[in-house]
Amino acid sequence: MQHTLPKFGFRLLAQDGAARRGEIVTPRGTIRTPAFMPVGTTATVKALYTDQVKAAGADIILGNTYHLMLRPGAERVARLGGLHSFMRWDGPILTDSGGFQVMSLATIRKVTEAGVEFASHIDGSRHMLSPERSIEVQCLLGADIQMQFDECIELPAERNEVERAMQLSLRWADRSKAAFEKARDEGLAGAGQALFAIVQGGTDYGLRRASAEALVAMDFPGYAVGGLAVGEGHDLMLRTLEATLPFLPEGKPRYLMGVGTPLDLIEAVSRGVDMFDCVMPTRNGRHGLAFTWNGRVNLRNARHAEDLSPLDPESSCPAARDYSRAYLHHLVKSGEYLGAMLISWANTCFYQELMQAMRDAIAEGRFKEWAEATKARLNETPSAGSL
Amino acid sequence: MQHTLPKFGFRLLAQDGAARRGEIVTPRGTIRTPAFMPVGTTATVKALYTDQVKAAGADIILGNTYHLMLRPGAERVARLGGLHSFMRWDGPILTDSGGFQVMSLATIRKVTEAGVEFASHIDGSRHMLSPERSIEVQCLLGADIQMQFDECIELPAERNEVERAMQLSLRWADRSKAAFEKARDEGLAGAGQALFAIVQGGTDYGLRRASAEALVAMDFPGYAVGGLAVGEGHDLMLRTLEATLPFLPEGKPRYLMGVGTPLDLIEAVSRGVDMFDCVMPTRNGRHGLAFTWNGRVNLRNARHAEDLSPLDPESSCPAARDYSRAYLHHLVKSGEYLGAMLISWANTCFYQELMQAMRDAIAEGRFKEWAEATKARLNETPSAGSL
Repeated sequence: MQHTLPKFGFRLLAQDGAARRGEIVTPRGTIRTPAFMPVGTTATVKALYTDQVKAAGADIILGNTYHLMLRPGAERVARLGGLHSFMRWDGPILTDSGGFQVMSLATIRKVTEAGVEFASHIDGSRHMLSPERSIEVQCLLGADIQMQFDECIELPAERNEVERAMQLSLRWADRSKAAFEKARDEGLAGAGQALFAIVQGGTDYGLRRASAEALVAMDFPGYAVGGLAVGEGHDLMLRTLEATLPFLPEGKPRYLMGVGTPLDLIEAVSRGVDMFDCVMPTRNGRHGLAFTWNGRVNLRNARHAEDLSPLDPESSCPAARDYSRAYLHHLVKSGEYLGAMLISWANTCFYQELMQAMRDAIAEGRFKEWAEATKARLNETPSAGSL
Repeated sequence: MQHTLPKFGFRLLAQDGAARRGEIVTPRGTIRTPAFMPVGTTATVKALYTDQVKAAGADIILGNTYHLMLRPGAERVARLGGLHSFMRWDGPILTDSGGFQVMSLATIRKVTEAGVEFASHIDGSRHMLSPERSIEVQCLLGADIQMQFDECIELPAERNEVERAMQLSLRWADRSKAAFEKARDEGLAGAGQALFAIVQGGTDYGLRRASAEALVAMDFPGYAVGGLAVGEGHDLMLRTLEATLPFLPEGKPRYLMGVGTPLDLIEAVSRGVDMFDCVMPTRNGRHGLAFTWNGRVNLRNARHAEDLSPLDPESSCPAARDYSRAYLHHLVKSGEYLGAMLISWANTCFYQELMQAMRDAIAEGRFKEWAEATKARLNETPSAGSL
């Protein structure tokens, strides 16, 4: 007998210019797109209760394969019933493949055709990630949406090095797909609903197109753009996106990985991106930087020391609405947990409010005007990254 | 026209052996005694929202004069509307006098008849605390219950040094009382509802009695026992308490400062103590030690790594009831904020549940049996302190 749960699916509900309003249906719930996924690195969205993440409006969160396979370990998470019940998040979870963090965090790495051997940044223990092992880990975690294993190289790099890594990632995409479908066809507990491919190719438009076309030929249910927001700058990121998106199918979700600032999100949505993830709201929250509808507020700044106004009196988020900037300033300066808790919460709410505003603007056919007005109001500089 | 708010008052509702069930009435709410006051050191009960502290059952919290006068500064807190609105706690607040922490934290100290000159542990800036300045700070903070300024010496110490400090503290009690009453009589904004005296005298029973009798002659609305739980050990602390409490009036609340473990609380309540404060639930929470009805649980221990049971399935606290020990273990091992948040929350709830259970047992005349059964269940060793 078949389960009656809805299968994975994506449908476009509205389009406004290149911006898209849609929804991804999964057995664990519907994801309204454009969507921002809070990052639950090590089975926790840092300094937040999952109830707060859900109430903020997040339909899906992201988990990190690299972190979770090292601690507490993927087999352990599986024995404990999977990542959802472990961390008390009953909505959909997307896991990355570990490809990015094995390059940015692991201390020793050796890349071969088979995969990547590396040493843990926690205790130096040796591990292997390959397309097959990455999918195995993601199934052990029980991720609803899984990502192909890819090689992420540091930029800038020579064109032939970028091409080599992109071609390797294509072969790994094929192997990831085979492993994913095998797990699903065998009815493995924790098998995912959908595997997304990752377009690579650095900032070389020709390589991006080649990567996209090859992946589309393999027919994935969703496509990510990887290897961006790694220091190439806002403008080059957007141009590379413009050179890539036309080669991805209209009817599949498009996910820009690891992005970004509020300005990045608006610009990427205006170009047709549907999904994002980024540590920015929570990492900046831990360092005293708040995102608001009137721009960034650095709560470390002494000018907030006696400011009784809240971050945003009209916010639906208690952290942004009910606490004075003076109090937040004090908490940040004192290194108190509650400072990180409140500002991470406020930022997580702001990011979800931003996505909701974009979804509404697209549905109502006024995205361009909304984007112009909002960019002026946020007053973000294109180069602004983290603190 | 007079405010119709209730004035400060204490009444005994029940007595069972020496254990007392009572209530302290203040304009900001009634405090059910025996009461445990969570410590909100620097205007935050660490890693908790005030809503959680209130829902846990706490009627009153404690703020630290020493910390708050240094950061954000008492005058600043007053300009911002007082400590209650600053930290969003609308119930009663008790502030200590700074006497203990100026001795345990400040880097340089000079004690004279006038007061204590000291250097801040934060930035080395120079400050002065005297009976008058301590009361001024406590009024600027807007504390409902204030404490006399006292000299806390390190133990063990020679008897004549203990006596000198005790006698000085008596003179400071008198000056504290004059300053407190002046503020109240002048209708100063932030003037307190009650000033408590602090019995000193180390572990010398004669000095304790002399201190108590002298303070009682001054007629304070409440009496604290200070200078205990500073390394003298559980048994000597209880014997000193037994040698002190008979010299305090029946009709005034009795507060044992800085105490303690669950066992300390049970033993002190059985001897007639009404109020406590201690950082133990939150400090231990940040280090992975949980207090439960079945004893302490060190969540760093590897035996919890795959334990799906919660800390206490029957707890009314979500942190103790809804998360597996395996997850808490993972969070603690990973140094995640959420680990500190959840275990501090669970401990704060446990301490309040413990006080409620004591209040119920006293009211129902079964405190002795309850205490024996609970001590057996908690299985605390008398010498157990922090982690």
